Amino acid sequence: MISFENDYSTGAHPLILEALAATNFEPTPGYGTDRFCASAAERIREACEAPEADVFFLAGGTQTNAVVLSALLAGHEGVVAAETGHIAVHEAGAIEATGHKVITLPEHDGKLDAAELEACLETFYADDTHDHMVFPGAAFIAHPTELGTLYSLAELEALSAVCHRFDMPLYLDGARLGYGLAAPAADVTLPDIARLADVFYIGGTKCGALCGEAVVFPCGNMPKHFLTHVKQHGALMAKGRLLGIQFDTLFTDERYESIARNALERAEDLKSVLAAAGCTFWRDSPTNQQYIVMENAQMAALSEHVRFSFWERFDDTRTVIRFVTSWSTTPEDIAALKTALEAIS
Amino acid sequence: MISFENDYSTGAHPLILEALAATNFEPTPGYGTDRFCASAAERIREACEAPEADVFFLAGGTQTNAVVLSALLAGHEGVVAAETGHIAVHEAGAIEATGHKVITLPEHDGKLDAAELEACLETFYADDTHDHMVFPGAAFIAHPTELGTLYSLAELEALSAVCHRFDMPLYLDGARLGYGLAAPAADVTLPDIARLADVFYIGGTKCGALCGEAVVFPCGNMPKHFLTHVKQHGALMAKGRLLGIQFDTLFTDERYESIARNALERAEDLKSVLAAAGCTFWRDSPTNQQYIVMENAQMAALSEHVRFSFWERFDDTRTVIRFVTSWSTTPEDIAALKTALEAIS
Amino acid sequence: MISFENDYSTGAHPLILEALAATNFEPTPGYGTDRFCASAAERIREACEAPEADVFFLAGGTQTNAVVLSALLAGHEGVVAAETGHIAVHEAGAIEATGHKVITLPEHDGKLDAAELEACLETFYADDTHDHMVFPGAAFIAHPTELGTLYSLAELEALSAVCHRFDMPLYLDGARLGYGLAAPAADVTLPDIARLADVFYIGGTKCGALCGEAVVFPCGNMPKHFLTHVKQHGALMAKGRLLGIQFDTLFTDERYESIARNALERAEDLKSVLAAAGCTFWRDSPTNQQYIVMENAQMAALSEHVRFSFWERFDDTRTVIRFVTSWSTTPEDIAALKTALEAIS
Amino acid sequence: MISFENDYSTGAHPLILEALAATNFEPTPGYGTDRFCASAAERIREACEAPEADVFFLAGGTQTNAVVLSALLAGHEGVVAAETGHIAVHEAGAIEATGHKVITLPEHDGKLDAAELEACLETFYADDTHDHMVFPGAAFIAHPTELGTLYSLAELEALSAVCHRFDMPLYLDGARLGYGLAAPAADVTLPDIARLADVFYIGGTKCGALCGEAVVFPCGNMPKHFLTHVKQHGALMAKGRLLGIQFDTLFTDERYESIARNALERAEDLKSVLAAAGCTFWRDSPTNQQYIVMENAQMAALSEHVRFSFWERFDDTRTVIRFVTSWSTTPEDIAALKTALEAIS
Repeated sequence: MISFENDYSTGAHPLILEALAATNFEPTPGYGTDRFCASAAERIREACEAPEADVFFLAGGTQTNAVVLSALLAGHEGVVAAETGHIAVHEAGAIEATGHKVITLPEHDGKLDAAELEACLETFYADDTHDHMVFPGAAFIAHPTELGTLYSLAELEALSAVCHRFDMPLYLDGARLGYGLAAPAADVTLPDIARLADVFYIGGTKCGALCGEAVVFPCGNMPKHFLTHVKQHGALMAKGRLLGIQFDTLFTDERYESIARNALERAEDLKSVLAAAGCTFWRDSPTNQQYIVMENAQMAALSEHVRFSFWERFDDTRTVIRFVTSWSTTPEDIAALKTALEAIS
Repeated sequence: MISFENDYSTGAHPLILEALAATNFEPTPGYGTDRFCASAAERIREACEAPEADVFFLAGGTQTNAVVLSALLAGHEGVVAAETGHIAVHEAGAIEATGHKVITLPEHDGKLDAAELEACLETFYADDTHDHMVFPGAAFIAHPTELGTLYSLAELEALSAVCHRFDMPLYLDGARLGYGLAAPAADVTLPDIARLADVFYIGGTKCGALCGEAVVFPCGNMPKHFLTHVKQHGALMAKGRLLGIQFDTLFTDERYESIARNALERAEDLKSVLAAAGCTFWRDSPTNQQYIVMENAQMAALSEHVRFSFWERFDDTRTVIRFVTSWSTTPEDIAALKTALEAIS
Repeated sequence: MISFENDYSTGAHPLILEALAATNFEPTPGYGTDRFCASAAERIREACEAPEADVFFLAGGTQTNAVVLSALLAGHEGVVAAETGHIAVHEAGAIEATGHKVITLPEHDGKLDAAELEACLETFYADDTHDHMVFPGAAFIAHPTELGTLYSLAELEALSAVCHRFDMPLYLDGARLGYGLAAPAADVTLPDIARLADVFYIGGTKCGALCGEAVVFPCGNMPKHFLTHVKQHGALMAKGRLLGIQFDTLFTDERYESIARNALERAEDLKSVLAAAGCTFWRDSPTNQQYIVMENAQMAALSEHVRFSFWERFDDTRTVIRFVTSWSTTPEDIAALKTALEAIS
Repeated sequence: MISFENDYSTGAHPLILEALAATNFEPTPGYGTDRFCASAAERIREACEAPEADVFFLAGGTQTNAVVLSALLAGHEGVVAAETGHIAVHEAGAIEATGHKVITLPEHDGKLDAAELEACLETFYADDTHDHMVFPGAAFIAHPTELGTLYSLAELEALSAVCHRFDMPLYLDGARLGYGLAAPAADVTLPDIARLADVFYIGGTKCGALCGEAVVFPCGNMPKHFLTHVKQHGALMAKGRLLGIQFDTLFTDERYESIARNALERAEDLKSVLAAAGCTFWRDSPTNQQYIVMENAQMAALSEHVRFSFWERFDDTRTVIRFVTSWSTTPEDIAALKTALEAIS
């Protein structure tokens, strides 16, 4: 059955598998000290225009958020996020399990608002009783957000300024960063992010890798003994080469961009097909995640032909469902969806 | 340069890469709910002769130890291990980071002694003050141990009996389980382990996989909501298929055994070559890790030709070094080592 | 200067000091195993009409909340509280420091609404993705609430029913329980609480003790090895007698009630004085905490004569301030406040 | 029954109760910001000859160890202690519950040896694999030790030098510090400790207070936002005055010394009585804890007349028991013990 369920339902970009096979018998030292990790890190530094950057490879997004944030935060600090933030909702309390509170602010199309963040920080420090409260120690944003939306460069600059005014690192979760960078609507580049965020990660798992996220500390500001911290959290891969080879491949010949471009072109096709079928869009999304509101009976019928994901109940008779494109979505998949939609209408 | 540095310095068994490529475009649901994980779990249940077993796939050994032990232990409990246990020494405090103490007992060739464990537990419960102490809540052993040694069936049965007398789960770390099962000296089988341990993991990373460990709860005794627990620890792979495909391949056509057998045959060759070169063995090891004591000058000379690993300082002029064979060690590697040893003698 | 700053600004009810002095030279075993703790527990069981209850004495409120909730919750669970709940706002992340999320719901006069809790739980379990979310593992309420308001018996029964429908313990923070029980508006008794809550604590620190809270598990449902858990959290007093003697005194001759009654009578006087002075009440509170909105200049003037506490900014020119009465508030204090208010008007 | 069970079996020095009564009706601000805490801190600074010291009052010893060490240690660090250290054995895993390993070294009369600590640190940093191990982040010693023994000034200076060579704070647990300072055999003064330790606490609970320990950061080196950290660990007393008044009393008129002196004089009497009764001393202790080895039958008989504490099983027929003197031990208690010993001999 064709699937638009998510952007991690197929394997990896074929060139990644080729690279794994081509280097398979070469022995390398473990734990990320191999030449592939070194090369991948160098390519990422170049792409970020951040020659001083420290780059560390981890296996998955929740792991990365928990490992990085717990390294950034002091014991009395928590992290501020939009109420829809992945760490606030869908990571099973991974941040709290490291002892830190996720402090939530309202979401605006999935985004944290710089003015609201500033007001929250001003109130916090103005209030005499804040010594009995969790200190805001970092800000978390996702780009694209969990709703597929994007920060504008102006919004990102404003957030960065507020964070720095309060001496607080800005952390950007780039699980789907490729799709955010390649979106036609985007005005934020990778060097912009490296300039404005204090730490961020470039997502691999959802952008064509088998697994893997590249954490970037753009100013060489990786915390001391970060490797030991990673090890302690069970996140240090023995065969670090698995991550290095994948990111080395993704950052060769602008492959990370081309993977994302394919997903976004298919997303445009998807939008057209959904619109043509008379579907109601739940929110406007400029990236590879598209949300529609569908009658429950129609949804059940469609699910016989196509895999998509349940997002949330809309009302008694309708549901929000999500369609996602990826590196591996083909025009044929879109055509098959079109047929399926026609069949149920 | 040829490498005997460890059993995770090359990629994966070629059939694993083939399987990844062959299934690459098939979309599957995420988080380990795919058909590959289901098939791998079924094959593992068969190999363990444990039809009721729950099987869960994780990415690495330290992660597995921390995730499983923190799920087993109550807040007031710690885990008992030999003082050389991996969790006690080389996991950067991963168990303590989940809030639990590692209670150590003396090691005997890297092993925990059943009689000593029993005496420790009897003393603990006899002592009036134990309410102010960490309760022993599980026992940890590795098979093979961190020194390459093996438990006999009698030793394992004794440990299992002591644990069950005190209503305490026995957890077996099988990072190198393949080598333990295939060793000519071994009298412990996989079904024995499934019968005697309450939880154990079958190591993939060090036995031919790119990454991955298969946790087995042989009596269907996986803790409730274990998936959420795994997610909370950042250990739930989005593309669970990566783990499922690998273990499905490893447990097809007795590949897990044949991989180990190759490593052990090469280990026998290695022993002969080291003995022929007049090397002093530090400890007798029946598996794929061999330890010798070498003069520092000779060690430096050898390191120009061959990669091995530093184990520990022996005295002012000598060092313990370790040679490890794996699925990918060839007779040619052994021959090259022989030449290198001759060159430095 | 007279103080209405809070209900813990003076020492202890004089009979407590007398009891400490009278028993000072009697040697007792440590850690709460003394005869005073036993007697206090028995008196509390009687007052609760809960003959099977386990009673444990701890030193303070935040400590009690963290120790009890971390004992109740499984690793994958969090605790649901109103957004104004003390654990959500003013305990510096004590719950998160034990690894658990505080899941917030809207507050209604500081209270958690049973229907909203039920809807939240129904949605949680209806949603397919809840395995990636923190499970609601307990509900937290304070009675009186952090705003001085009270649950009605009907509200408490509804909350208890929802919790039990979802097999989730209801935990009641009674830091100011005395004031809640003695309030003329209250229709909830101590036996009601023992019947409806699964765990609760009877506050001592804010109700006339030097320190101390009595945790009650009304059905003898104290978690196994709770003492070790308490010790691990640094909350086990060596001289447990200090807590036992205090609660034994408070629960003799209905002293806990008479202390609260004094505070509430003074609170009524306080209300009259504030009303007579033309003050604007921020919220209606039936207990010993009274909130008014005052012009900043007036507030500054008043603070020269009387101590009260800053609550929150109201607008650019006004502030919410809090006046609290206690066991030690006298009619003379009220009279002095009246004079002070007249002086600044 | 007379008791030598421990030094926390009676209440408090009578002058403490007097001071509590005398100040009972004076309202003070909460959380340790009252004038009594300020005065007590100033007196402690003077006694320590450490005018820059930060002083913070906590309620108990395990709490203090956990709160202070978790504030000192980075996530990847543990604390080094003798294997008999209180934090290693009798605090129910309180340190591990904050995420940190207790790294143990052999004990020598309960003491940590400076040369062994140095060798351990040299080995740690020499070893290539230490990035996978817990970093030693602080050293823990108790003075007197858990066995009643004392560090000499030379030993303390050596430990301090090793710690500072490796840029690691030295933390001294002074639960029974009074007895250590007042012991005739002692050559270590409070100013010595303030000069050599980076943090230490002056025990109140076991030295005449109802509860309370005074943490001293002699160079004004209290971690930033320590109060919030304390609050998060449930260790911030609302009525901080309870601690302030007690330490203010203890550090007035050299009361802390005189309390200890009484205990030590009674300990000398105790030794004489035990020796005269032909008891075998288990270890030589210069402070208020005395250990003897007694036949089990005799022990049972004695326990009918006198309370003492079980220490450990010696062999099949004998037990190590402990007698402790305190501020409240009188010559009459000693005489009664003498009679009891005669009765059973």
